[in-house]
Amino acid sequence: MNIRFYNARILTMKDGQDIFFGELWVEHNKIVYVGPSQDVPEKALKWDREIDCEKNLLMPGFKNVHTHSGMTAFRSLADDLNLQDWLNNMIFPREALMTPDDIYWLTKLAILEYLTSGVTLIADMYLTPESILDACDQMGMRCELVSGLNKFGPAVSVMEERFNNLNNKSSLVGYKMGVHAEYTCEKDLLIEVSKLIHKYEAPLYVHMSETKTEVDECFQRYGKSPVALFEELGLWDFGGSIYHGVWCDDSDMDILVKRGISVISNPGSNTKLASGIAPISKYLERGILVGLGTDGPSSNNCLDMFREMFLVTGLAKLKEMDPKAVSADHVLKMACVNGAVSLGHDDCSDLSEGKLADIIMIDLKQPNMQPILNIAKNIVYSGSKSNVKMTMIDGKILYMDGKFMDTDIEEIYEKCDEITTRLKDI
Amino acid sequence: MNIRFYNARILTMKDGQDIFFGELWVEHNKIVYVGPSQDVPEKALKWDREIDCEKNLLMPGFKNVHTHSGMTAFRSLADDLNLQDWLNNMIFPREALMTPDDIYWLTKLAILEYLTSGVTLIADMYLTPESILDACDQMGMRCELVSGLNKFGPAVSVMEERFNNLNNKSSLVGYKMGVHAEYTCEKDLLIEVSKLIHKYEAPLYVHMSETKTEVDECFQRYGKSPVALFEELGLWDFGGSIYHGVWCDDSDMDILVKRGISVISNPGSNTKLASGIAPISKYLERGILVGLGTDGPSSNNCLDMFREMFLVTGLAKLKEMDPKAVSADHVLKMACVNGAVSLGHDDCSDLSEGKLADIIMIDLKQPNMQPILNIAKNIVYSGSKSNVKMTMIDGKILYMDGKFMDTDIEEIYEKCDEITTRLKDI
Repeated sequence: MNIRFYNARILTMKDGQDIFFGELWVEHNKIVYVGPSQDVPEKALKWDREIDCEKNLLMPGFKNVHTHSGMTAFRSLADDLNLQDWLNNMIFPREALMTPDDIYWLTKLAILEYLTSGVTLIADMYLTPESILDACDQMGMRCELVSGLNKFGPAVSVMEERFNNLNNKSSLVGYKMGVHAEYTCEKDLLIEVSKLIHKYEAPLYVHMSETKTEVDECFQRYGKSPVALFEELGLWDFGGSIYHGVWCDDSDMDILVKRGISVISNPGSNTKLASGIAPISKYLERGILVGLGTDGPSSNNCLDMFREMFLVTGLAKLKEMDPKAVSADHVLKMACVNGAVSLGHDDCSDLSEGKLADIIMIDLKQPNMQPILNIAKNIVYSGSKSNVKMTMIDGKILYMDGKFMDTDIEEIYEKCDEITTRLKDI
Repeated sequence: MNIRFYNARILTMKDGQDIFFGELWVEHNKIVYVGPSQDVPEKALKWDREIDCEKNLLMPGFKNVHTHSGMTAFRSLADDLNLQDWLNNMIFPREALMTPDDIYWLTKLAILEYLTSGVTLIADMYLTPESILDACDQMGMRCELVSGLNKFGPAVSVMEERFNNLNNKSSLVGYKMGVHAEYTCEKDLLIEVSKLIHKYEAPLYVHMSETKTEVDECFQRYGKSPVALFEELGLWDFGGSIYHGVWCDDSDMDILVKRGISVISNPGSNTKLASGIAPISKYLERGILVGLGTDGPSSNNCLDMFREMFLVTGLAKLKEMDPKAVSADHVLKMACVNGAVSLGHDDCSDLSEGKLADIIMIDLKQPNMQPILNIAKNIVYSGSKSNVKMTMIDGKILYMDGKFMDTDIEEIYEKCDEITTRLKDI
């Protein structure tokens, strides 16, 4: 499909955050023009569709780069518990009963929600990457599968196999090496992982420094923090990200800087599970790349990047008792650009010519977007998923004006209802 | 209009939070039946409209009981500043230039947003109550106007006059006595106010203990906290509410309990302005009534009760490092019931027969409301204003399926654009 968007406000996020009036052309799955309006487009393509944006805003989609989509099964099932009780007593016993097909449907439910929230790229760490791949591929969701390797699950050899097989099965889906967390891996296992990432020169993704207990216990086990342990084992030699990063201290940050490791912050989950407030301002001061994720829908409980955007700045302001902490501009960059960069996905980080057409349209004609004094601040401080008028991924419009294209949402709801009914009362 | 809602899930919030399938009848502006479905309704009225709720949820509307609606003019104009800079340098100079007509239009813009967020009652403290009254009356918004008396504005006699005149001009709008804050009133002025509330046996509403600086400075001036000062002056003798209540200590709480003063919490504003986290769990332990407000759209910046609901529990969890702090059930009660009670508005606090028909419909068929394991938790932890399918106030449907009834939203946007353009660059 070749699509022309015209009469639009455009925020490319390429250099700074200036917004201009203009148009944007999509050819197949790429952006081929973004710039001033053209009455008679010179290089006009044969349009399949021309969309009048009515002065609404086109901008890059949000990158939700830490989630566990299949956990939609557990939304509102296990709230108000601490992290270890929640994992050990509520989640792990039920996850043991989930099939790849369950996770296929539950991921589809999550994808519907991502689309309503303007998410165009996810990094999904969950149990059955093969069926997650199918769900994303069929629904058109761009996704990096992330291994959640741990001592209870499949061996390192399975991660290697998946790394080789799953990276090329769908143009929308990649596979990244990762481990669940320090506290769910023995040291020998981490050493095996280190060998593998050195073999492939691959970055590593991992839950880290989410709770104070986790860090304290790692000190008890190894006399050092999780970040320092991974450094000792060479696990950061090819970059990667830590998820959460609530309890990193200055020496951890030295390592993150030295190795170019990004922090993916999950403020909604950290709030609901009372894990703490991440030192976002310090990360920014140190030049550490910060991206955003919703975490899974059992710990957050929603998959809403607007919540994460407000919280990542709001909580920083509270932590430092400083209303100037973490500006709206920083937040938008985290949500749109940094998440893509953290996954090596520079091909969809902004709206430049030649980049993938992962685009959202923000409805500025709703009362929470009025008056239009500063659109970036409106989005970060007063925005809502109800402002997402369109979500396009890879040149395809998947969601527009509250409707999902080519998707039987009733079927997804029914399948997920069957699955959750089976799992809830075990 | 007589309206029959059928095929609904219903959460009355009357006794507990059980949800049942049934129907609800509205005659003129009151609820006349709520209970099990009736195939051939026995006491059937002559219906003007019958609405198939398709198993979506009917519940009482949210009560946003602390706001400054007219501050929509300043949304995204003055962010990332501390409270005193924000008030003194950005807000007060612009407010001095606002006309009653400006505030009329700016309030209408806010009302549009309240309707999208399922708000059916507001308590609005702003400059020109007469024009706010007109805006609310014309748009069908239930509102308690609250005086923001202070040493810079109209005299106490004006408050008395308004109390007598504005309380009976519209069946939708009342007027409450209030003062802006301790730090904007001299002691003599507060003594005058005390005489007036004793004359009318009226409750008092006031910003209080919002920032630590405010409390510290009150101690410097009077050797006691603002709550204690107001107690000394007899200002609590007929009840009322404090807005914010972030920095109340145990002895303040003793006074709040003794006088039956409620706390209206504004977690979005307290977060964005870095004012701090209110001790909500302690208030609940002490039996203090807690309601919710968005505060004005220049400090929050949105008028979204879903944000406030997530934050009031989330921030309590963070403050206490306890994920069990402040349950979803408590939060829903704050948002729907307590706010009404804090204003003496028991007539719209729940969906019982005889009460005012202030009802919202929550769309359970959106992905963030699936699966349906626990609807109350879904609303509090994963809900969004995009789930508000209908907002009815006083028996009138004002908003449904994304559309505002009988309202020219373009006219409101244009007028507000003119006003904000005039005010922004002074």
